[in-house]
Amino acid sequence: MLAYRLIERKRDGGRIDPGEWRALALSYAKGQVPDYQMSALLMACFLRGLDRGETAALTDAMLTSGEVLDLGELGPARIDKHSTGGVGDKVSLVLAPLVSSLGVVVPMMSGRSLGHTGGTLDKLESIPGFRTDLSLAEAKAQLQRIGCALIGQTPEIAPADRKMYALRDATATVESIPLIAASIMSKKLAEGLTGLVLDIKRGSGAFLPELERDLELAQLMIQLGVDHGCPVVALVTAMDRPLGRACGNALEVEESIQALKGEGPDDLMEVTLALGVEMLMLAKVAASESDARGKLTRAIDNGTAAAQFRRIIEAQGGNPGVVDDPAVLPQAAQCEIFSAPRRGFVARVEPRAIGRGIIEMGGGRTRMDDRVDPTVGFVVTARPGEWVEAGEPLATIFARDRASVEFGRQALRNAIRIADEADPPLPLVSHRVTADGTQVYSTS
Amino acid sequence: MLAYRLIERKRDGGRIDPGEWRALALSYAKGQVPDYQMSALLMACFLRGLDRGETAALTDAMLTSGEVLDLGELGPARIDKHSTGGVGDKVSLVLAPLVSSLGVVVPMMSGRSLGHTGGTLDKLESIPGFRTDLSLAEAKAQLQRIGCALIGQTPEIAPADRKMYALRDATATVESIPLIAASIMSKKLAEGLTGLVLDIKRGSGAFLPELERDLELAQLMIQLGVDHGCPVVALVTAMDRPLGRACGNALEVEESIQALKGEGPDDLMEVTLALGVEMLMLAKVAASESDARGKLTRAIDNGTAAAQFRRIIEAQGGNPGVVDDPAVLPQAAQCEIFSAPRRGFVARVEPRAIGRGIIEMGGGRTRMDDRVDPTVGFVVTARPGEWVEAGEPLATIFARDRASVEFGRQALRNAIRIADEADPPLPLVSHRVTADGTQVYSTS
Repeated sequence: MLAYRLIERKRDGGRIDPGEWRALALSYAKGQVPDYQMSALLMACFLRGLDRGETAALTDAMLTSGEVLDLGELGPARIDKHSTGGVGDKVSLVLAPLVSSLGVVVPMMSGRSLGHTGGTLDKLESIPGFRTDLSLAEAKAQLQRIGCALIGQTPEIAPADRKMYALRDATATVESIPLIAASIMSKKLAEGLTGLVLDIKRGSGAFLPELERDLELAQLMIQLGVDHGCPVVALVTAMDRPLGRACGNALEVEESIQALKGEGPDDLMEVTLALGVEMLMLAKVAASESDARGKLTRAIDNGTAAAQFRRIIEAQGGNPGVVDDPAVLPQAAQCEIFSAPRRGFVARVEPRAIGRGIIEMGGGRTRMDDRVDPTVGFVVTARPGEWVEAGEPLATIFARDRASVEFGRQALRNAIRIADEADPPLPLVSHRVTADGTQVYSTS
Repeated sequence: MLAYRLIERKRDGGRIDPGEWRALALSYAKGQVPDYQMSALLMACFLRGLDRGETAALTDAMLTSGEVLDLGELGPARIDKHSTGGVGDKVSLVLAPLVSSLGVVVPMMSGRSLGHTGGTLDKLESIPGFRTDLSLAEAKAQLQRIGCALIGQTPEIAPADRKMYALRDATATVESIPLIAASIMSKKLAEGLTGLVLDIKRGSGAFLPELERDLELAQLMIQLGVDHGCPVVALVTAMDRPLGRACGNALEVEESIQALKGEGPDDLMEVTLALGVEMLMLAKVAASESDARGKLTRAIDNGTAAAQFRRIIEAQGGNPGVVDDPAVLPQAAQCEIFSAPRRGFVARVEPRAIGRGIIEMGGGRTRMDDRVDPTVGFVVTARPGEWVEAGEPLATIFARDRASVEFGRQALRNAIRIADEADPPLPLVSHRVTADGTQVYSTS
């Protein structure tokens, strides 16, 4: 009867109080509330909204539906980074080894690709042997030993969120600011962090394209962190085009390794370093922004960061040779260059079309249980604003067969627009949001 | 993918077109769309609404998800009555035998008790042996033989509606005018009727208490009927207090038999005759309202109506002796008089409190699979507006044990309010709605 009454109340615009959220989350995690009731409630929440107090209560209810890690013995600097999701966004793969190589514990719990965006777990699993399904005990031991673990949401962590997220994905109730904030923060707060950096994506390839809603989401998550004594800093970054060049699981691992060696594309390096600076500042292992930036650059230049990635891969059962030889990664059966159909400016490289193309080629998911082909994807060298000549290569398609190449070609035709003029793309890092307010870095 | 796209579109306030409704209803009836997607869509429909065209399309989609009866060979007068549901509303049990005894074919498909209201099938099944689960072939043969069959919604009739209705009931998505209208009309139009009379309940005990929404519902169902060539007339009747005195399954059968013999309470007789007149007029077996009323009264007075009920009961396997001896019905183990706690006017007899009391005593359902105890309920003799002395009997409680008597007592304490003043109750029959417009009978 509880679920019914809560659906009815939220449907009519009422509030659900903390005790009710807690009882609901526990019953749902245990399977006592059927999915069909929860999905009706989620749609009512989507359309009627949750106020600040309800969002905090839902976060807490999902958090306490499972275990909360106690990592206090690992020291005072336990920092994670979370991105709201994009195409070509492999920042986690670079940041986790880079920042943990500097003495910061990074207990990173990531997700799988879903919708048009990629997922860190799928990317990591393209490394032969790499296991992301560590138990909490294994993860804790690894954190103790090498300061970083890259794992999925274990069954012990926020089980109510785990079930609810899968349901939202199937019932078109994802794009709700309070539901997104509560879902992310319930998982992140369970990691026992001392600080969290958020990468809030804006632009056409983000789940919430409008800047205004992104800032609202950032502020809400920051407040939820403050409630739980976890400082949160958010950067708003561009997702009106893919980040970096590689889009697709193994391709992104390869580009991440280049970045760890200082050879990544400029935009990827810029976003990674900006987020890394925030992580080091929150961890209090850098005295200033320039100190932090210097530490990160040196860890890349002197090989410390790459060495740490080797250590993480080895600890999680993967072949660490990948850091030195990308040929260790699975390779696509078919490659094809995609060339500019005309001369002009690159006016758009649309991330959603790229992401959907990867799904069509078998490298993404339309259902949670879809298998992902790690080899497929694109390397898009065309950058918005650039001038190109007809026939000039814009991208390479990686596919498993000839039919898939055609899907890829079609996706790139939709994604890349050449025109006589090009509006400037969004600034890469435009806003910095903290509990104290919002700084605007760039408005262009 | 279809369901997902439709949820998303309706969530954002868009329209679902007829082909999509049809595909959805068929897939859902076949179990290809999971309940959790349908319940999210239903909540989006509840909150975003359906326009007139969408409601017509949904009605049609649910109607054509199953069989449509062809009863043309039974003659030109095939009329049913449908009530939006109330407490003590046993009108169907009286009208079906009464009207079919006058040469009108009445193929009545009814529902079970759910929420605070009773259901015709549960009431009928309190008659020992009575079967409501006739197959369509059995029902058709019985209609041919005796002109009336009282059955449940068979699996062949509007299966998409059948599943959707059960889901709406569990997900707080019942009280939506377009969803109610589409659900009722998809079933009724499947009966192959030449006319339909609607009893739209208003007041605190109705699913839609406000008059304005009741009139909207009436007009919508009338339009849906017109679309399918089935004339519909609606009367708006009072449900701010129970109809008649008996509330509870076997108790209502007993009172229905009294009514068939002309000995029913005045309010029950008035509503029954008003609806019966409309049925006879739609069937064109009466030349005028007064002619219709005369025919109905005579069928009661000369025993034709009661004899037809005997025939129906016998045809459906029940013990027809019940018409002459109510002791044939199962009897409650415990009875207790409930008396006025003080002198004053009977200010309220609240139907929802009565209905919920019956559920608590075991005579109703909170889930579709609950078993119903036919013996329990109330006979409420107190009428709103009446003056009573302290200690005067107001009602009798029928219960299965002493503990249940206490539930009943509590329900009556909540339901019946004695005060120094009493507002007049709603007029019994206040509005008549047809395709031509709305007549106001009484505004008091």
